[in-house]
Amino acid sequence: MVNQVQRGDGTLSSRSDSSAASASGGDSSKESSRCSTPVLDADRTDRLRYKMRRRMESGDHWFSLEFFPPRTASGAVNLISRFDRMGSGGPLFIDITWHPSGDPGSDKETSSMMIASTAVNYCGLESVLHLTCCNQSKDNISRHLSKAKHLGLKNIMALRGDPVGSDWEEEEEGFNYAVDLVKHIRSEFDDYFDICVAGYPTGHPEAHSYKEDLIYLKEKVAAGADFVITQLFFRAETFLKFEEDCRPSGSPCVCVQGYQSLRQLVKLSKLEVPEEITRVIEPIKDNDAAIRNYGIHQALEMCRVLLDSGRVPGLHFYTLNREVATMEVLRQLGMWQEDPRRPMPWAVSAHPKRKVEDVRPIFWGSRPKSYIYRTQDWDEFPNGRWGNSSSPAFGELNDYYLFYLKSKSSKDALLVFEVFTCYIAAQPNRKGHKVMCLPWNDEPLAPETNMLKDELEKVNTRGVLTINSQPNINGKPSTDPIVGWGPPGGYVFQKAYLEFFTSSENVNALLKVLKKYEPRVNYHIVNVHGRNLTNAPDMQPNAVTWGIFPGREIVQPTVVDPVSFMFWKDEAFALWIEQWAKLYEDESPSRMIIKYIHDNYFLVNLVDNDFPLDSCLWQVIEDMFELLQTGLDTGDEQATIFPY
Amino acid sequence: MVNQVQRGDGTLSSRSDSSAASASGGDSSKESSRCSTPVLDADRTDRLRYKMRRRMESGDHWFSLEFFPPRTASGAVNLISRFDRMGSGGPLFIDITWHPSGDPGSDKETSSMMIASTAVNYCGLESVLHLTCCNQSKDNISRHLSKAKHLGLKNIMALRGDPVGSDWEEEEEGFNYAVDLVKHIRSEFDDYFDICVAGYPTGHPEAHSYKEDLIYLKEKVAAGADFVITQLFFRAETFLKFEEDCRPSGSPCVCVQGYQSLRQLVKLSKLEVPEEITRVIEPIKDNDAAIRNYGIHQALEMCRVLLDSGRVPGLHFYTLNREVATMEVLRQLGMWQEDPRRPMPWAVSAHPKRKVEDVRPIFWGSRPKSYIYRTQDWDEFPNGRWGNSSSPAFGELNDYYLFYLKSKSSKDALLVFEVFTCYIAAQPNRKGHKVMCLPWNDEPLAPETNMLKDELEKVNTRGVLTINSQPNINGKPSTDPIVGWGPPGGYVFQKAYLEFFTSSENVNALLKVLKKYEPRVNYHIVNVHGRNLTNAPDMQPNAVTWGIFPGREIVQPTVVDPVSFMFWKDEAFALWIEQWAKLYEDESPSRMIIKYIHDNYFLVNLVDNDFPLDSCLWQVIEDMFELLQTGLDTGDEQATIFPY
Repeated sequence: MVNQVQRGDGTLSSRSDSSAASASGGDSSKESSRCSTPVLDADRTDRLRYKMRRRMESGDHWFSLEFFPPRTASGAVNLISRFDRMGSGGPLFIDITWHPSGDPGSDKETSSMMIASTAVNYCGLESVLHLTCCNQSKDNISRHLSKAKHLGLKNIMALRGDPVGSDWEEEEEGFNYAVDLVKHIRSEFDDYFDICVAGYPTGHPEAHSYKEDLIYLKEKVAAGADFVITQLFFRAETFLKFEEDCRPSGSPCVCVQGYQSLRQLVKLSKLEVPEEITRVIEPIKDNDAAIRNYGIHQALEMCRVLLDSGRVPGLHFYTLNREVATMEVLRQLGMWQEDPRRPMPWAVSAHPKRKVEDVRPIFWGSRPKSYIYRTQDWDEFPNGRWGNSSSPAFGELNDYYLFYLKSKSSKDALLVFEVFTCYIAAQPNRKGHKVMCLPWNDEPLAPETNMLKDELEKVNTRGVLTINSQPNINGKPSTDPIVGWGPPGGYVFQKAYLEFFTSSENVNALLKVLKKYEPRVNYHIVNVHGRNLTNAPDMQPNAVTWGIFPGREIVQPTVVDPVSFMFWKDEAFALWIEQWAKLYEDESPSRMIIKYIHDNYFLVNLVDNDFPLDSCLWQVIEDMFELLQTGLDTGDEQATIFPY
Repeated sequence: MVNQVQRGDGTLSSRSDSSAASASGGDSSKESSRCSTPVLDADRTDRLRYKMRRRMESGDHWFSLEFFPPRTASGAVNLISRFDRMGSGGPLFIDITWHPSGDPGSDKETSSMMIASTAVNYCGLESVLHLTCCNQSKDNISRHLSKAKHLGLKNIMALRGDPVGSDWEEEEEGFNYAVDLVKHIRSEFDDYFDICVAGYPTGHPEAHSYKEDLIYLKEKVAAGADFVITQLFFRAETFLKFEEDCRPSGSPCVCVQGYQSLRQLVKLSKLEVPEEITRVIEPIKDNDAAIRNYGIHQALEMCRVLLDSGRVPGLHFYTLNREVATMEVLRQLGMWQEDPRRPMPWAVSAHPKRKVEDVRPIFWGSRPKSYIYRTQDWDEFPNGRWGNSSSPAFGELNDYYLFYLKSKSSKDALLVFEVFTCYIAAQPNRKGHKVMCLPWNDEPLAPETNMLKDELEKVNTRGVLTINSQPNINGKPSTDPIVGWGPPGGYVFQKAYLEFFTSSENVNALLKVLKKYEPRVNYHIVNVHGRNLTNAPDMQPNAVTWGIFPGREIVQPTVVDPVSFMFWKDEAFALWIEQWAKLYEDESPSRMIIKYIHDNYFLVNLVDNDFPLDSCLWQVIEDMFELLQTGLDTGDEQATIFPY
């Protein structure tokens, strides 16, 4: 049953003007002596309070989304997929609730702390972590905050939390109210965190009066809170009155909207449902569809009143970890970003350390979370010239088996070539299962790769097992819906790229063929043990994606980098075993086939440097097959290639 | 009278294999933690001995050119122009002779030291500085070497030099032979310098025998010399025998060729002219043209014999500071680079510190020597992202009046607009003088700028006084003879650029017009006192020239950078006064006009970011003129623009 509930909140202008002065400076890299990155998106580097302020100044309404931590590991995997989907709609931030009984600060994959960290680091979402202080020791609270800081979290919603048991009493030196937590955060962590506090449009259920509650709110703001999220409410008037009463403290306000089991929420919030709502709901309470429609309708109505009032810069949604109804309301309000602008061709992480990250090796293009995980301990992110610098090492290979990186592959896939072909074609295999991902690809084919579908399908059936590719692009507008990224008014470019596993027989032919394509085609060829066979000059990185923008230096976010390729090679080969072979019994034919491929195949990547012409990479593969058919002069072959 | 003389020299493979191991490392930036530059041209960063070795390995013959220091300042100006012209033919290196009586180590503009420094720093030529040690104190020699090192010289030709006076005797602790100097350089400066020594194919005139002389040569090589240049010789056989005799020490050899007053050279070298040559020359000794033709013919013959022998990797020419005959021989040998590849769109300096320099502001495009001079004290050259880093300051403006930067302008130019127009049109002004340069342009219009000639002419007649411009280029091959640069197989791009002085009335109209062109056109507008009026986002640099190459990252060597523009502004305005107004008497009308322009005009630069389309900058200027004709609403104008 999906019901409709409501909630209001308020944003207070940030607490001191001295902090505003450092708006664009702060801990950004601009102050370092390192050459700096062209700033493509100021939003990416700003803290939440400044993003809010800019949106309020420009009158651009925002929305934000609230989630609770999942109960199970598979629930976590689903929630993270949801983050990716809902993140694309353009929320200003998301927030993760905190339930003291659920070990919320632990390293468990389901904890509030880890979910918020994943949202920031892997999904690139600006996130607010809730934190309650009731019945907590100072040390414990500080430990949570330090951990949050270490993980790259920048925003805390400071709450008292419900006392456990009914025998709660104020402690002399303890955290009795949210204001104590706000003071503690400011005294221990100075200005590092943006702090959010709760407001109660109908007064806190335990407060003596609505008026007294307003005084508490002002205390929290005076102690250093940057903005306010209110408790839910059912009527627009409730919020608008509250906003009016807060106005003396100068608070611009935000409206809030949510869905889910009405009963459960009402119980949690200790609020009463207005009669006009129960009156409608009672007769249809067994009809889920009717309740949902009514909820969407009610939410839309209230949101429109609030937005039209001109006193509401944004809307905050209780998603209760669902997405359909929230997305529907946002779509109807015209607030859901239908064509999300990509700031970069890859998904940007929101970790403060990664603000300056502006280039990645192409290899992890379909496994971005693995790349982020394996580079999480880097102090600096190589900007501009990537592989040549004395890069810090990649994280150990066996580190990256994060729960949500685990395979979704089914073991019903049998013949290897067929699996690749079915994946490319997005078609069911012979057992009727759609192949939606491969060990080397977390998601189905990108729309851009779909442009190459026919060619990819053809070569996969012949044993060129493609795991990554991009078409060449010669100056498409940066707003192009498929290949565009970066600010408008620019042009994006790509060199054609193809990466695949193939047999040593094919590689021998390929190396002969590639001589004809010098210097147009650059290649790297390696087997599981082997050294890198390449014609890359001086082992320099090759930029394969770049963009030209008004008033900016060139941005080159994707490179084929020889140094990182050797790390990727280890990962790419390991995936055959870890994510595929292990689906089958020891000594089973399936496992033996996969083991054979792992031990004997080569990983190849090819770049066509002549980006304005049609890609020649398909012709390279065609030439390779042709040479194989006409027969190789194997005599001289043995001497020249692969003395492993 | 131009006669023909000959000289041979030898290159010895470098002295130890331990040094070879650091071939591509050394003092290059690769070891720093700074992000490194894509290496477009390995030759640019290598030391001379490795360049030689690579050329020998590939069988690619080289040539090199010897010059002596000029006697007068105007001779120096001419010699430096000659360096630029002869440098374009592709010599592997040039060398500058050392004449102890001429104060060769001083700071005078005519000293060997300063001429070599200019060749390296401003002309970008790999250069060898001769140094003699006879009758010199250790301190003196060390001082010269330290100075050479400080100036960025990397190669020394270590010579004994002729004793001054006939009463020379060996000194106990002194420098008696070149080998003493070689030892001193290696002991004081370790491996910093590449050392060249002299060889004598017919034996040193003072040596007891040819054989004894070979022993001295071996000693010099054992002491640390990297290669040998021989004394001149007249017959190919002389050199080939010498090469054979040296072979035991493993020396690959180089042939040498020169021209000039035979008598003078013979006197200096204490060599005898073979009879077959004097026999030809005697009868034609009063016919300069005949002597020259004979000399070229003889030189060609000998060079061909030497090259055909397969024992000569290159040719060294005594130019005696002339260019015609040497260039003729080299052209006929097919060794003169007719289409010199530009490694960068600007002339690269050969100072070791500048090896990583890969980007410059466009403003000094026509005054590259001034830019090099004003940035000579920088420790690091901004690579990739230029202006945003906390750049070291530019050298003081009054520092840069180097003798060879002094104006060549004639004072016959009278009306300012006309001068600009005549410069663009390459036409004579009303007094019949061709305007070949302007204070802001050292040379006549570049071929590339010539593409814009008609448009430039038109706007200059109307008071838009252009000093710098480039057309937009949307992906021309890097081998394009006019706009190409960098290695073959790449593509070069440009955004259209226009820089000019114009009146405040024009600027007021322009600013109105530019609003229509947001964000397509970026601008910077400033007067002699003023702050920078700009729409550049966050004052970031705008890349206006870039190139895409096989297997490389993007190279972006020219930017419009807001920080350096303010330094350029000072220089550009100062040139009105220093190089133009001062040609006229105080209070003269000409001087007053120029002073007025200096005080009241604005310096404007415009970039059209939409490089694939036709440049809109001419339309911007046209719109400005149109607005001026239809009349400005001056009321609101005053309020918005230029509150100086």
